[in-house]
Parts: sequence; structure tokens; C-alpha cells
Amino acid sequence: MSRRVIAYDSTLRDGAQAQGVSFSVEDKLKIVQRLDELGIGYVEAGNPGSNPKDLEFFTRVGELNLRHAKIIAFGSTRRIGITAAEDKNLQSLLSANTQAVAIFGKSWDYQVTDILRTSLQENLAMIGDTIAYLKAQGKEVVFDAEHFYDGYKANAEYALQTLQAAADAGADVLVLCDTNGGTFPDEIFAITKTVVARYPLLQIGIHCHNDCDMAVANSVAAIQAGAVQVQGTMNGIGERCGNANLVSIIPNVQLKLGFECISGAQLAELTAAARFVSEVANVAFNDKAPYVGYDAFSHKGGMHIDAVNKNPKSYEHISPNAVGNERHILVSEVAGRGAILSKLQQIDPTLTKESEAAIKILEHLKALEHEGYQFESAESSFELLMQKLLGKFQPFFTLKQYSVDIHEPSADGMNSSVTVHLIVEGQESGGSAQADGPVDALDQAMRNALAPFYPAIQDIKLVDYKVRVLDSNLATAAKVRVMIESTDQQTNWTTIGVSTDIIQASWLALKDAVEYKLLNAGKTRVVA
Amino acid sequence: MSRRVIAYDSTLRDGAQAQGVSFSVEDKLKIVQRLDELGIGYVEAGNPGSNPKDLEFFTRVGELNLRHAKIIAFGSTRRIGITAAEDKNLQSLLSANTQAVAIFGKSWDYQVTDILRTSLQENLAMIGDTIAYLKAQGKEVVFDAEHFYDGYKANAEYALQTLQAAADAGADVLVLCDTNGGTFPDEIFAITKTVVARYPLLQIGIHCHNDCDMAVANSVAAIQAGAVQVQGTMNGIGERCGNANLVSIIPNVQLKLGFECISGAQLAELTAAARFVSEVANVAFNDKAPYVGYDAFSHKGGMHIDAVNKNPKSYEHISPNAVGNERHILVSEVAGRGAILSKLQQIDPTLTKESEAAIKILEHLKALEHEGYQFESAESSFELLMQKLLGKFQPFFTLKQYSVDIHEPSADGMNSSVTVHLIVEGQESGGSAQADGPVDALDQAMRNALAPFYPAIQDIKLVDYKVRVLDSNLATAAKVRVMIESTDQQTNWTTIGVSTDIIQASWLALKDAVEYKLLNAGKTRVVA
Repeated sequence: MSRRVIAYDSTLRDGAQAQGVSFSVEDKLKIVQRLDELGIGYVEAGNPGSNPKDLEFFTRVGELNLRHAKIIAFGSTRRIGITAAEDKNLQSLLSANTQAVAIFGKSWDYQVTDILRTSLQENLAMIGDTIAYLKAQGKEVVFDAEHFYDGYKANAEYALQTLQAAADAGADVLVLCDTNGGTFPDEIFAITKTVVARYPLLQIGIHCHNDCDMAVANSVAAIQAGAVQVQGTMNGIGERCGNANLVSIIPNVQLKLGFECISGAQLAELTAAARFVSEVANVAFNDKAPYVGYDAFSHKGGMHIDAVNKNPKSYEHISPNAVGNERHILVSEVAGRGAILSKLQQIDPTLTKESEAAIKILEHLKALEHEGYQFESAESSFELLMQKLLGKFQPFFTLKQYSVDIHEPSADGMNSSVTVHLIVEGQESGGSAQADGPVDALDQAMRNALAPFYPAIQDIKLVDYKVRVLDSNLATAAKVRVMIESTDQQTNWTTIGVSTDIIQASWLALKDAVEYKLLNAGKTRVVA
Repeated sequence: MSRRVIAYDSTLRDGAQAQGVSFSVEDKLKIVQRLDELGIGYVEAGNPGSNPKDLEFFTRVGELNLRHAKIIAFGSTRRIGITAAEDKNLQSLLSANTQAVAIFGKSWDYQVTDILRTSLQENLAMIGDTIAYLKAQGKEVVFDAEHFYDGYKANAEYALQTLQAAADAGADVLVLCDTNGGTFPDEIFAITKTVVARYPLLQIGIHCHNDCDMAVANSVAAIQAGAVQVQGTMNGIGERCGNANLVSIIPNVQLKLGFECISGAQLAELTAAARFVSEVANVAFNDKAPYVGYDAFSHKGGMHIDAVNKNPKSYEHISPNAVGNERHILVSEVAGRGAILSKLQQIDPTLTKESEAAIKILEHLKALEHEGYQFESAESSFELLMQKLLGKFQPFFTLKQYSVDIHEPSADGMNSSVTVHLIVEGQESGGSAQADGPVDALDQAMRNALAPFYPAIQDIKLVDYKVRVLDSNLATAAKVRVMIESTDQQTNWTTIGVSTDIIQASWLALKDAVEYKLLNAGKTRVVA
């Protein structure tokens, strides 16, 4: 039977140290709930002494009906030269009223003498007294040995004495911390193995940071050496380069090493949970995140796509379903015929690899991408283009002319006036608009011209607008690529325009956005 | 003496497989130049057969005067059942005219039988024939053993036979690829060690992907096992979860393991080079990137800052200077004031920390940065602003009005007409221009209005124009930040403008560019 590894999440405590991350009480409660559903064993949530928000949190978290997660209040060893009972921070720690607490203490001799500026002996007493006191209050106690690996490399004997002090005082878990993130997997493995052998009856935990880009590998190495608790954060949120990323560690140890961590059903919720936490934390989600990123199972190279169509394992190390993610086939200059064919066949199933149409379209795409078009992130423009090249597209409107007038300065800030003349169903329709920028005015004017004919377009909201200057060393004469993401609340779609004129590039993307909506009006399929 | 490890960059080839990444020929040439300066040993740049852009690239890259980097053209083994000489792709590979080439072939038996759909014997022949043919053409040949680790785990004997076929044919380097990114560091170490022992006279290379979030650790493990060439990309750009990140690997092996990879002076350029490549690739730079991210040496709040002030090693695993990065103490006011003060004192040495002017300016800067201004990359706009806020700046001209008219379609493509009215030395001066985009026309019109007064501006060339959309979820109503880099052949300077209107943002940056030139006319100091 396989060994169990307990996931210990510190997103709400160590993660909250990250630059630009701060959680409201509501945020914290939402995240705790989600982590519990995910099967996380411990959720380290802060210190009620540190601020009033945390105090309110600990009062309210008790009302949640958690099934897996133990809430952890986090604090440090008692201050120098007083008893644990006299220490205000420890009193506030107890006021959190949690079943389990985590205490960090120093394991690197130099940190004791030069930073804490006390004796090595007093530091051992601080660790022992604090843990003994908390055990006497009936708490489960996790001891975080700060800078353990750096300490062990500098003075192994003293680093081990700090663990012994914690063990003698009754600590339940000894957590070895690579606080500065400078240790390598082979060192982590060897040192952890020594500690595991020394404390066969205690749980050993691992806490890593990503300063060498190896926090996940370091955590895995410690588990391979016998650690049974792994500390980290969702998406690796944390100070400096971040904490070890539980979202990568959990599937690594469970799918690749065969440890038990969370259930298979919970693992299938990993992608959703990772995206949920990044939304609540308001940290941009990494599309390239292992296992859970949008790109993690995206295939672009032509050969790769052919191979994945034959057998996914040829370019996928696991099945995306296992972690609740999915496969994406992308279109691009390097994708070759295979990818494009599968797209074309959605429109015209009679087409084959050899069809002249398919070959022509491939050539045309290469030329467009040479101009700066990039369709893998603008699939809706791509689908429109395919329809047009296959002669399947009935235009909903054509441009007769647009005029943009910008006068700066302007009295009311609305410095841009746009008039658009379209031919819609054989008749001319004009629309005008004013705005504080020409692209916004152009969008509104086009909609005004179309609204009488196509009320459906009123549902369209633009959610994103990106500009990329191509060959930017041509400066203001350079080409620009505009990408616009639109939504009608049911689905999102992205369109593209390229021109030396940013207004025209925007027009092309706006026009595609509307055409795509009209083409799919009534359809309900979701578009990437 | 320490062992040498050669960095092999594939940003322009494997990196270009990433979703949303697509390099123009200009982009590629700029990146090659920068990688060469960084001391990268090999730059894999694509295949002239794959698309017209690569063909043009290989023609022009020959004109660069590279000091370190060998350019690599990349291709696959010959097709089934023909001779190498008959293979079109190999001919186009040779047409790249590079001293060295890389060839990938399959090392996983299942990939040969089920994906390639040929015999194991023919695959060995394809590897051998291809490499022998390329060696006969006098090429240095790198053999990428695709899926080597998966292949070794499935059928070690056959995986090793594919290496033997390459070695027998005269391959110079055998690169072991973890193509699917599913292998763990301990496996990579053990398998690589076996191969290194088997081929003491050949160079062994490593090529990893980040699907388990361990590509850097895997690359390091292979080097510890004896690999002497490490393949990867800048910032880990690559398909799915990315390639191994050379920006992390290089300092890891050089600063932590003591290998020789690039010079210390080149290592100090690592941060700048990493940010440069992400700019050119238009991939958002990761502030939390190990070694080079803005946050990598950022310290937040109390204890950590006290400790770092006592001794940086207490929370820093290396000195930020070693990789050209810097420490950030995130206690704004005080630290911020100090930084800005030193800038102000360059203009007015009598200013002190307590000067009301300094305090006012800090408040003003905070407001501007809240609006989306970002002066660390636009020092010239910053210097102008300081001059203005200190009342030291004598305006060379003021805007009365500009008018932009855009009519699309236009007969000759020159769809944008701009008129600018300025007040210069008390009198009104107008300028007009037509161009195929409004920003270009605006630039020309302003120069026409100024030229009679300030001939010096005729020397100004715009070398770069960048647009970033801020709060992009506001779509076309969002603010945009425009950055313009200018040169007068002696010095380059960068200016910035922010507005909801891209034309106005461009105007602000163009105006600063000219004002800065006029302010410094005669001076010869170089401005970042």
C-alpha cells in the first residue's frame, strides 16, 4: 500500500507575503472552503495577533463545516528572556482557538547570534519552552525549522540540536525549511534522509522557496527521502520568487510517484481550484502553469498534432482529464496541414489533406503570418477566414468609409469623433460617435450603424484589447497587431487585425468580432 | 579547474512553438545579437525550409559579426525509404549555410512503430544515414534523441542503439531529450550517468521541458551526471509549459555548482538580457522569475528587512549584483524618497530629504505611477518631469492644437492627415503631414512645425515604438502607455505618454522626445 503525503497550504500566510497580494476575510474564507474541498490536510491562515482581519477570520472560520482541512494559526517562538506564558504573541496565537498551531524557530547558528542576537543556548530554550507550553494547552504543534538546510550546511550539530529541542518538547511535526530557496535537490534529499532516519516516530515536513527555480523538485526530493508533510502555496504565490507550488507537487507525487495525497476526484478539481485561487488573490493566472495552465496540453507544431491525434501519450506526459484540464490544438505557421485540415473539416467535411483548397489556404496563412497575423490566439478570426477562403461566408455588411477626427485639446475630453458608413443588406447605413479615444469612438459608431439591422450585437462587450508593435524598430511607421477579446456573456472570442495604422488594425479586429457574433448567433458552442 | 558547460539556446526554434510567440526576422536578428553578447555557445534558429521568414533570417544572420554563438539550423532525420541526399528538408537545412546543424530522431521504440510507422531498423538507418551525410558535407552535427528518457524507460536497449547509430555516423553531440517533460530529476541523473559512462569521448547534452515544473532541476541533475551541453530557452519560453529556463540554469550551475558557462561580466548582463528577450517576444516578463525578476530580491516588511540590513545573506541566497539584478526594500516613502532625492540632486544639489520640493515631487510621482506611468524604463521623460517640477524647464514650444483626420479606404494608402499648431518663441507655427497611419503623420507634422526654429531635431530618428494597454479589461476604453525610443546617432533616449487615447499618448511621448533632444542639444552624455 502506498505511503500518504499530507498537503499543507500556506497561501493565506506565507503567500500573503507576496508583493501585491492581500486577502480580505471573505477571500480567506472562500479559499479555505475551496482548499478543504480539494482535500488539503492543513491550511495555515495567519496570526490573530498580526491584524484585526485575522482575528475576525479565526472567529468566522470556526463556523465553516470543514471535512479535510485543519486550520493552523502561525507564530514564532517566545521572545528572548521571558516565559512562554508571558509572551503576548503566543497568547494571541492561542486566541485563534485552533486545534493545531505552527511555530517557527531558528536553526542556523549565524541567524541566532547575528540576527536574533542571543545565545545558541537561549534559542534552544525558546524553541523548547514555546512548544512545551503549547502542548500543555493541548495543541497539535508543527515546528518550522527556519533556514534548516543553510543551518545544517553551516553547523549540522547545532541545526540538529534545534530539532531535538522541538522533539523533546513534544512537537508533532518537524518541518525543514529552505527559507532562502538556495538549496539544490541532491542536498535536500541527503539532509532530509538523515533527519528522517533520526526521528522515525515523528512526522517530517518540507518547506521550500523557488529562488533557484527548483522548489517543486526540492519538495519532491524531500518526499522521496521520507518527508510526509509538504508545505507550499497554490500556484506558488509567495514572497520573492514564490513558495513551492502545491498545484505542481500534488500531481507529481500522486500521479508519478504513487503516493496518496488527495482523492482522484479531488485531483480532477485541481485546475478549477488553481484558477479560483488566482482569481480571488487577483494574481494573473499563468497559462503555462504545469498541469493546470491553458497551454499545458496545447499542441502547436504540425508533427506534434499529427502524433497526438494518433496517440496523445506521444506528446502528453499525463491525461489532462486527471487534473481537470483539457487538450487544445492550436493553429500557426509551424502547425502545418494537419491542424488546419481538422479545422477546415469542421466547415467542409469533404476536404482532404490533398485538396487544392487546403493547400492554397495553408500558403495563404503562411503569407499572412509573415505579415504579422497570429491565429493561434485569435481562433475566431481564423474561423472567419476559413469560411471566407472556402467561399462559405455571406458578408453581413461591408465598409463604405469611416472617418476619424481627433482634435486636441478638446473642451470635454471627448476629443475623438468617428463616422462610419456601411452597406448593410444593400442599403447604406451610417453611424457616429464621440469618445475620449478614437478606437472607442470607432467601436461605438460601427455599432450604431449596425444596431437597426442586427440587434444581437448589443450583447457584445469587449473584454480585452491588446496591441503589439511589429518590427518596432520601424518606430511609428511600424505595423501593429491588435487583438480584441469579446464576450456575449455566454462565450468569449478573440479577433485580430494587422496594419501600419493602429486605427485600421483596430477596425479589422472590431469588424471580425461583430461578424463572428453574427455568424454564430443562435449557435451555442463555446469558442476558445 | 572547473568543468565547462555550454549553453545552447533554442528560443528562436523550440521557443517559437509557444502559444502567442511569433518572431519577425528583425526580432530574431536582435535576439541572436543579444544572446551572442551574453556568451551563449549555440543559438538554434529554425529551419529555412519551414517558412519564408526563416529563409530570410538565415540569409541575413550571416552578416552579423558574432563572437561566441554558433548558429544552428534545425531539422529531422531523412524521410522513410529515401537517401539523405534525396531529402528536400535536408537540402533546405544545408541551404541555411551554417557551420553546425541539429538533427532530431526518435529514440522511443513506440514512437517509431506507432507514430512514424516504420521498422526499428529503418529508424536506426534514418539516423545513421542522415548524420553521415551531414558530416560528409563538413557540418558539426548535434543529434537530439527525441523522447530519449521515455524511450529508455520503455526499451533501454533500443534507446541506446539510436545513440550508437548517431555515434557511429560521427555525431559530435548526443542530446538526451525529455520531450514530454514527464521525467523526474533522480531518473534523469541515473540515466544520463549511464550514457555519459558509455560515450566518454562524445559530448552529452540535455534538453528538458517543464511539464512537471522541474525542467531546471532536471537540467541541473543531468549536468551533475556529466552532461556538458544544456539546451533551453530564455525565460523558459516554449510550447505547453515551456522549455528549461536558461536564465535560471546558467546562474545555478555557475554560482552554485562552480561550472564555467559564461563570464562573470556576461552573467551580470543576465537580468537585462532576460528582460530584453521578453520585450522582443512580447511575452509579459515574470516579476517573480528566479534571479532576474523584479521581486527576486524584494523584501517586504519588518523582520526580513531588519535582517537583510544586518546581513543580506540572511534572506538572499546570492548577491543580486552577480546577475545584474538589485535589491528592493518595499517600504516605499523612506526608500523611495532616498532614490528620487539622488535624481533631484543631479539637477539641484541644494535639495535635501526634508526639502518641501522633494516631498511634493514624490507625491506627484506616486499619482502618476498610479495612472500608469512607469519611469524606470523612461528616464528621459523622468528627467524632463523633474526639471519641470523644479521650475528649471524653459518650454521650447507649446501645443495650440492638433487635428487628425483618417479616411478609410484611401486612394493611395496615405489615409491619415494631421495638422499641428504650435506656439514657438511667441509665434504660431503650423505643420501638416500625410502618412499611412496617424502616429507617423503626427510625428512628421510636429517636426515640420518645429524645423524652421530647431534644425537640430532633424537628427532625431525614432528607433522603437511600444504600446501597452493598461487595465486591458476596460477594452477599447482602457488607458494605453506608449514608449518611444529615439536616437540622434550619438545617444538613445526613451520617453513615455499615458492616455485613454492612443494618439494623445503617442503625442506626449513624441513631445518629450523632442524636448529632451533640445534640452540636451550640445551635451554629449549618454542616456539610458
